[in-house]
Amino acid sequence: MLRTHTCGELTIKNAGQTVMLCGWLAHSRDLGGMTFIDLRDRYGITQLVFNMDTNKELCNQARKLGREFVLRATGKVTERSGKNLKIPTGEIEIIVDKLEILNESRTPPFTIEDETDGGDELRMKYRYLDLRRTPLRNNLLQRHKVGRAVREYFDSNGFTDVETPFFIKSTPEGARDFVVPSRLNPGEFYALPQSPQTFKQLLMVSGFDRYYQIVRCFRDEDLRADRQPEFTQIDCEMSFVEQEDVLQMFEGMVKQVFKKVRGLELPVFSRMTYADAMKYYGIDKPDIRFEMRIADLSSPLSSGRGDGGEVVRGKGFKIYDDAELVGGICAKGCAEYTRKQLDELTEWVKRPQIGAGGLGYIKYNADGTLKSSFDKFFDEASLRKIAEKSSAKAGDLILILAGPEAKTRKALGELRLEMGSKLGLRDKNKFECLWVVDFPLLEWNEEEQRWFAMHHPFTSPKNEDMALFNSLSPGEDKDKVAPKANAYDIVINGVEVGGGSIRIHNKELQQQMFKVLGLTKEETEQKFSFILNAFEFGAPPHGGIAFGFDRLCSMIINNEDYIRDYIAFPKNNSGRDVMLDSPSAIDEKQKKELGLK
Amino acid sequence: MLRTHTCGELTIKNAGQTVMLCGWLAHSRDLGGMTFIDLRDRYGITQLVFNMDTNKELCNQARKLGREFVLRATGKVTERSGKNLKIPTGEIEIIVDKLEILNESRTPPFTIEDETDGGDELRMKYRYLDLRRTPLRNNLLQRHKVGRAVREYFDSNGFTDVETPFFIKSTPEGARDFVVPSRLNPGEFYALPQSPQTFKQLLMVSGFDRYYQIVRCFRDEDLRADRQPEFTQIDCEMSFVEQEDVLQMFEGMVKQVFKKVRGLELPVFSRMTYADAMKYYGIDKPDIRFEMRIADLSSPLSSGRGDGGEVVRGKGFKIYDDAELVGGICAKGCAEYTRKQLDELTEWVKRPQIGAGGLGYIKYNADGTLKSSFDKFFDEASLRKIAEKSSAKAGDLILILAGPEAKTRKALGELRLEMGSKLGLRDKNKFECLWVVDFPLLEWNEEEQRWFAMHHPFTSPKNEDMALFNSLSPGEDKDKVAPKANAYDIVINGVEVGGGSIRIHNKELQQQMFKVLGLTKEETEQKFSFILNAFEFGAPPHGGIAFGFDRLCSMIINNEDYIRDYIAFPKNNSGRDVMLDSPSAIDEKQKKELGLK
Repeated sequence: MLRTHTCGELTIKNAGQTVMLCGWLAHSRDLGGMTFIDLRDRYGITQLVFNMDTNKELCNQARKLGREFVLRATGKVTERSGKNLKIPTGEIEIIVDKLEILNESRTPPFTIEDETDGGDELRMKYRYLDLRRTPLRNNLLQRHKVGRAVREYFDSNGFTDVETPFFIKSTPEGARDFVVPSRLNPGEFYALPQSPQTFKQLLMVSGFDRYYQIVRCFRDEDLRADRQPEFTQIDCEMSFVEQEDVLQMFEGMVKQVFKKVRGLELPVFSRMTYADAMKYYGIDKPDIRFEMRIADLSSPLSSGRGDGGEVVRGKGFKIYDDAELVGGICAKGCAEYTRKQLDELTEWVKRPQIGAGGLGYIKYNADGTLKSSFDKFFDEASLRKIAEKSSAKAGDLILILAGPEAKTRKALGELRLEMGSKLGLRDKNKFECLWVVDFPLLEWNEEEQRWFAMHHPFTSPKNEDMALFNSLSPGEDKDKVAPKANAYDIVINGVEVGGGSIRIHNKELQQQMFKVLGLTKEETEQKFSFILNAFEFGAPPHGGIAFGFDRLCSMIINNEDYIRDYIAFPKNNSGRDVMLDSPSAIDEKQKKELGLK
Repeated sequence: MLRTHTCGELTIKNAGQTVMLCGWLAHSRDLGGMTFIDLRDRYGITQLVFNMDTNKELCNQARKLGREFVLRATGKVTERSGKNLKIPTGEIEIIVDKLEILNESRTPPFTIEDETDGGDELRMKYRYLDLRRTPLRNNLLQRHKVGRAVREYFDSNGFTDVETPFFIKSTPEGARDFVVPSRLNPGEFYALPQSPQTFKQLLMVSGFDRYYQIVRCFRDEDLRADRQPEFTQIDCEMSFVEQEDVLQMFEGMVKQVFKKVRGLELPVFSRMTYADAMKYYGIDKPDIRFEMRIADLSSPLSSGRGDGGEVVRGKGFKIYDDAELVGGICAKGCAEYTRKQLDELTEWVKRPQIGAGGLGYIKYNADGTLKSSFDKFFDEASLRKIAEKSSAKAGDLILILAGPEAKTRKALGELRLEMGSKLGLRDKNKFECLWVVDFPLLEWNEEEQRWFAMHHPFTSPKNEDMALFNSLSPGEDKDKVAPKANAYDIVINGVEVGGGSIRIHNKELQQQMFKVLGLTKEETEQKFSFILNAFEFGAPPHGGIAFGFDRLCSMIINNEDYIRDYIAFPKNNSGRDVMLDSPSAIDEKQKKELGLK
């Protein structure tokens, strides 16, 4: 070893010892007679001291060193006169008597500090320097802890870590596959897995009973901010279980990880149906750190939905009379919002991302009076009814959107989150975990005029909806309510960190699913015969879940939803690695060998 | 849960309890009045009993079930009259009162038994059934344990598991890269990593200090038996270390894994230089479970090598006089080999895989007389000298090959292993671990007339050979002895399970390496600028190792060198997954999107 200790472990107890340390020059201060160097490694910072009086030559040498030089220093641990009690090593310093430059460094293109002066692209190009900064380094060290806690939980619950192949078969469904040309089989391609879905099901057919894997997956999507073409999944599956068993098992996992990594004891997770999530929060992953539910203010124009609480129609306000849905949220204590604040909110909801036509409001003033943006049509008694329906009290502000139901609920959901943020209701120190259950099995795609699997085509319909499911035809029945599935998502503070389902384990049912999704018999055979065959040889009932590991880490470690800071070497928003400059052109010879010319 | 217990846990202690079990029908026996079913899951086998007298209907139902049906049985745990003490559940049986068929099964194409009747290809096609067999299932369960033991060791030694990218840049060196066309960057490709080598070095530059990862890697090689295009590596790196630190750390890892998985305490590992391995064993990964060293019987024609023990030249036997090397091994107790046995051995060494011209021998008979295949040229005194040189005693057989040095040593090495196997010296219950050290940095490739990196181009020359290294030119100096490297392999029973080196951490030295390997400045810049840049910003001294995880598992679990049985879904020898039928053609549309048309 080139060192006897790390830069994070020496304390007053070591005073008097001669030690060797290695690390990077973080800061140096030349005070004339004395020179101080902060030597940094992954474990901490230790102060080195050089004295002109006692060792002029060495001190002069120390003065010449630049930031990020790699040093090896030998010297004696000594109690400091001016102690720094903020760091564990702050009571001591090293009086250096031997100094070795292990490597020099050019001046880094940005400062290696918690708050750096480097822009995003620059830091991506020099990622290896950005990773020297404490916040990023800590993210990765904590990610390691999350992974360890996950594995410990699975190990103690009888799960087996089985590695599944990366070179599989292209079965595009949902996102596009990345493919790999085969040199030994010219014209043919492997596909990289979007998830190990079919393999974990085959492992259940094999009798592995409980499986997990922390595994890289690949999706060739049109990139959006904070999506990565490669990402890591915690993939799990269990045999002989029902939905409740799966929820209990993985709720236990998330709790244990929070406990081990953050020291937090989470309470029992909330549960909500998909239907309620959409109705009350306008989204399938509600942030339930705060209430502010969406209130239906119109009896729906379509039949059979809503709560029938008619309070806005028939007053001659055409927008509300004609809208499929009029809905409101109540912003507590915001009755005193100014004209300017309301105008800003109106602009906000009219942005294309939200797409509302306008914003209605009712101020329920502190003195009990009511004032709305549509006073022309409504008397105070009518406004009071709306306020009651919205659970508003004196001092509150009701914000109202109207339009087509799905779009309006979504917009209200977004507005709710925005108001939650504005009002400080999305507390960084609070974790609210939620199971969203009873997802629809299918959703109708207007553009392609066909059914799509909401989760994936291996999800089982609920027993009570089996007849409905079996009655569906591909490309038809758009007006039928989709059958429900034993499918569930796990949501933390409005961020979906995982999802799963009870699977189909019966060949005929699986064939019916492919049929409903519009696959021909030939396509089904060509792409999925292996799993259909497997179902003929004693497939057990099974179900599971997959967590987005990058996102789970980002939530657990810092309660934030930004995965790039939790991945060692991420791609940028165009899917490029700017450090490597990849993807890149390859040799003509290589292309030819691969049969690509 | 569909069950209250697994099929492996009920014992006499549970007698009287009503239980629910799920599993597969392994065997059934219809004895007229009674029917017995062995119900199997991953955890074991439990006997179910059906009685015509007490429940005729249920018994008749049970009689109709086929092999591998998935069942759920409810009943009472009862002490057996005829106990099977070979299995933990053998003292009890379940008197079933409710039976549910969870899934049916076609008759499997081969028997699900320890010794099956299915051929290789058939079992590969139905891998999910093959994995139901105990030997394969145990391999994967044990593999999980090996992985866990590895992680525990690293965790307790301060290593951080950091995930490195799969989409990297094509830098062909050694094997070919697999590549992935980028749809968003038409005409450009990602490459899949042959190993995370450069990334783990960048992590050292970042200051992560100790890194590990169990990670999939990819090599597009012309496939040989028991090679896989994708394989798993235990990848490790440490900063501020010298070779000895690395050897100690990873010797500790291997020992701990053997202890935890096999309960074996291994002694301190042997060490051997590459030069000695080649000289005495004819191979860089000697199986040292047995001695049988190669003896030099000729003073070498080339200068400076060998031990000068001239005993075969100058006797008028032209083959030995002209051979660059004459070498022998001593097969203990084989003096009585018959003509037929010797002929077979001769045929064996003349096979193209070995390529020897012929086989000489000396029988050192039990009565002390000597008899050779070249008696015409050698008197008994001369034979005795050879015998002495070969450490042969009365009763032994000396086998002799002659020819060009490298080829002959290799052939002798192979013959040694063959004789070791024949003589039962390669004990399945014995583990001999060996570090082979002081590998050459480079080897000259006659075909391409240039230097190749023996390990990889990031390996550092030994300090004492630095001047020699700096004097080398690309495509020249073939006659120079290659500089030595701080490179090491770990060998268990003749199987290389890992290898590593101390790395270059200096930009100029790395540039000199690329130059010696024949890369132009432009190629170096285009392919490796990221790592050369990183070396300019304070790269610490560092080194590491990588283990072939598949092979390590195969050695630890069963002391065999056959990785395919330790991978859940392997490819066949042509790189095909015959279960998926992959690689396969992809849609024209997909090709077009990827810019491949």
